[in-house]
Amino acid sequence: MLNVVSKDEAVGIVKNKTNRAVPKSEKVNIENALGRTLCEDIVSPENVPAFDRTTVDGYAVRADDTFGASASIPAQLEIAGEILMGENAGFSLESGKCVKISTGGMLPAGANAAVMVEHTDNADGLCLVYKSVAPYENVTKTGDDIANGETALKKGTVITPAEIGILASLGVYEIPVYKKPVIAIISTGDEIVKGDIKAGQIRDVNTYLLSSAVQSFGCTPYVYGAVRDDYEEIRNAVSVCLEKADAVIVSGGSSAGARDMTVKIIDELGEVFFHGIAMKPGKPTIFGTVNGKPVFGLPGHPLAAYFVFRLIVCEYIKQIMNLPEEKSIKNAVLSVNIPSNHGREEYLCVKLNENGEAVPLHTKSGIISVLRQAEGFIKIPRDSEGIDRGTTVGIYRL
Amino acid sequence: MLNVVSKDEAVGIVKNKTNRAVPKSEKVNIENALGRTLCEDIVSPENVPAFDRTTVDGYAVRADDTFGASASIPAQLEIAGEILMGENAGFSLESGKCVKISTGGMLPAGANAAVMVEHTDNADGLCLVYKSVAPYENVTKTGDDIANGETALKKGTVITPAEIGILASLGVYEIPVYKKPVIAIISTGDEIVKGDIKAGQIRDVNTYLLSSAVQSFGCTPYVYGAVRDDYEEIRNAVSVCLEKADAVIVSGGSSAGARDMTVKIIDELGEVFFHGIAMKPGKPTIFGTVNGKPVFGLPGHPLAAYFVFRLIVCEYIKQIMNLPEEKSIKNAVLSVNIPSNHGREEYLCVKLNENGEAVPLHTKSGIISVLRQAEGFIKIPRDSEGIDRGTTVGIYRL
Repeated sequence: MLNVVSKDEAVGIVKNKTNRAVPKSEKVNIENALGRTLCEDIVSPENVPAFDRTTVDGYAVRADDTFGASASIPAQLEIAGEILMGENAGFSLESGKCVKISTGGMLPAGANAAVMVEHTDNADGLCLVYKSVAPYENVTKTGDDIANGETALKKGTVITPAEIGILASLGVYEIPVYKKPVIAIISTGDEIVKGDIKAGQIRDVNTYLLSSAVQSFGCTPYVYGAVRDDYEEIRNAVSVCLEKADAVIVSGGSSAGARDMTVKIIDELGEVFFHGIAMKPGKPTIFGTVNGKPVFGLPGHPLAAYFVFRLIVCEYIKQIMNLPEEKSIKNAVLSVNIPSNHGREEYLCVKLNENGEAVPLHTKSGIISVLRQAEGFIKIPRDSEGIDRGTTVGIYRL
Repeated sequence: MLNVVSKDEAVGIVKNKTNRAVPKSEKVNIENALGRTLCEDIVSPENVPAFDRTTVDGYAVRADDTFGASASIPAQLEIAGEILMGENAGFSLESGKCVKISTGGMLPAGANAAVMVEHTDNADGLCLVYKSVAPYENVTKTGDDIANGETALKKGTVITPAEIGILASLGVYEIPVYKKPVIAIISTGDEIVKGDIKAGQIRDVNTYLLSSAVQSFGCTPYVYGAVRDDYEEIRNAVSVCLEKADAVIVSGGSSAGARDMTVKIIDELGEVFFHGIAMKPGKPTIFGTVNGKPVFGLPGHPLAAYFVFRLIVCEYIKQIMNLPEEKSIKNAVLSVNIPSNHGREEYLCVKLNENGEAVPLHTKSGIISVLRQAEGFIKIPRDSEGIDRGTTVGIYRL
């Protein structure tokens, strides 16, 4: 039953076996859209801005009326009135005339530039222009920001304040987003408890660690809690979670026997696709599906469980929400040589030293405090003997 | 009344005038703590792990009983029983004996190492050990992860899944965090509307942009909405917001007259400390306090308003929540020369090209779509003539 695959094979299998999962969508109000993921392209229904606007306080002019103007020989334009903010100019500017305008105001037809008030004088109803302007100088043209029919935002974009601003400028207040997938978390192990611990026991970390990780990657956690290494208890937990959630994570148990239970349960309820990934940490990872819903068996060690979440479960999340390929958050030069075991991909937490170099945070398995010092993690490829000091490495978000 | 300051002076004034604001704290359940900011150091009340644990499946041993063991001359140890997961060993291991143990199990007193099951054979109640282990090999010692009395997490830390995991491992389920400051947003301008627009009008972007920005920096927005450039209306809005919120942002108006209104209103209700910052974008920024509560007057242009939020308002947020100094999110080499106006600090959105170089996104003022392409922004110092192509620049989070 032990079917060990490479990390890339594992990702391929996860993507392949979950690609029929139809992403569900919903509309949310713009005020609740931060952090959600667009499930459709947003095509602009109009030009932004919808009219030629001035970017300065001053006068709207026909640019050629100012050509040749200088401090000694100003152009003289008749002031034909004032355009107030938010008002439609509603007339056409004739040659030889100008109209007072504030930043953001609408240029009248005929006008194609704006002169800054600082470069003018007002002499008895005449505007003296001391500096010529080129056509469209100091003007944001219709559609300059976002053109009618342009794809303003792409499907799969995670909504940050920038996207909120763009949606607001388009008047799109009901935002089509993916429903948050619900991911259930079961933490198993006879030694795992919540609250006060006795000798030999250890607190349940994975329930909290993984449910917050699920949240921070845009999904909704369904927290089942901790269960003992008991076949019936785990089987029951998995069944309940399959009802409540779109995917299930079973972390632990730490003993070999407990891991076999998870494999057997998935196999009984559905199908197991692999048991074991050539990665470190994360080797004892299990993946299967039950009625098309993925079930992930993660190691019991919090750090290992977290890496499997990031490298395997996140691929499922990225697939169903159409998220873009992940890029490193920064690059840095490695401060030391890192040896590695050929044949498995390896992940190491790193921090940056005072020279901005990446320093690996070595740790015994099970230790979680290393996460709090880490800037992110680096990957050591499967077929490498390690990475030499001085090599530039990509650092990924934890 | 126009009192223009440098950006650094502006930050100094904002910090100085708001440092008496007592940060308010509350306790939240660990399940709701993601993204919040710790308001106290978390000192570990115990050792994690609370006992010496094995990191492998195999046998707990006294290391010196294995010294000299090899494949040809294995050490022979009497198997004194098994320690189950979550159980207190409850006895002391005598010399010449070993005990079966699973990963994460508690070492009995006397034992100081673990032998991997792969390096042993079981022969009629005797364990043959083919490989010696050093003291504490394959063991996580008591307190190795987090020691009793150690500062596990520092005040001012923003809680990510890593911190959630550490808190759970310590059994700290009620988390002391800063209350989210409430920041009110008022968007002003005669041309600003929500929904359908007529010629000359423009949609209210700042209400949505700034309230999501407030959210994404860990605060709660109080959305007042858009008001016209009317003295009484704005004054009333500011008064209402001062009742409801810890700080108030007034964005716009775009006309010089409207900006003067905001200054006059703050001056009437409290005190204005500066009007104008030597920064680009962001020059017409206003700052004052009313009864100790900060009131920020931001430019009407969304991009400029956003930069002032990030560079000035965020300094207030960082101060009251004790957040650490901001670091650049990544560094990159500049793809082109950037000229700059001596005498003011300048900010530019940049994207990365295919070579990983930072490319400035030039834009007319008022254009917001530039935000969606940007990887972040760079700073051009006040007393520089610009930055040369090839210079490494820090890119900051937008």
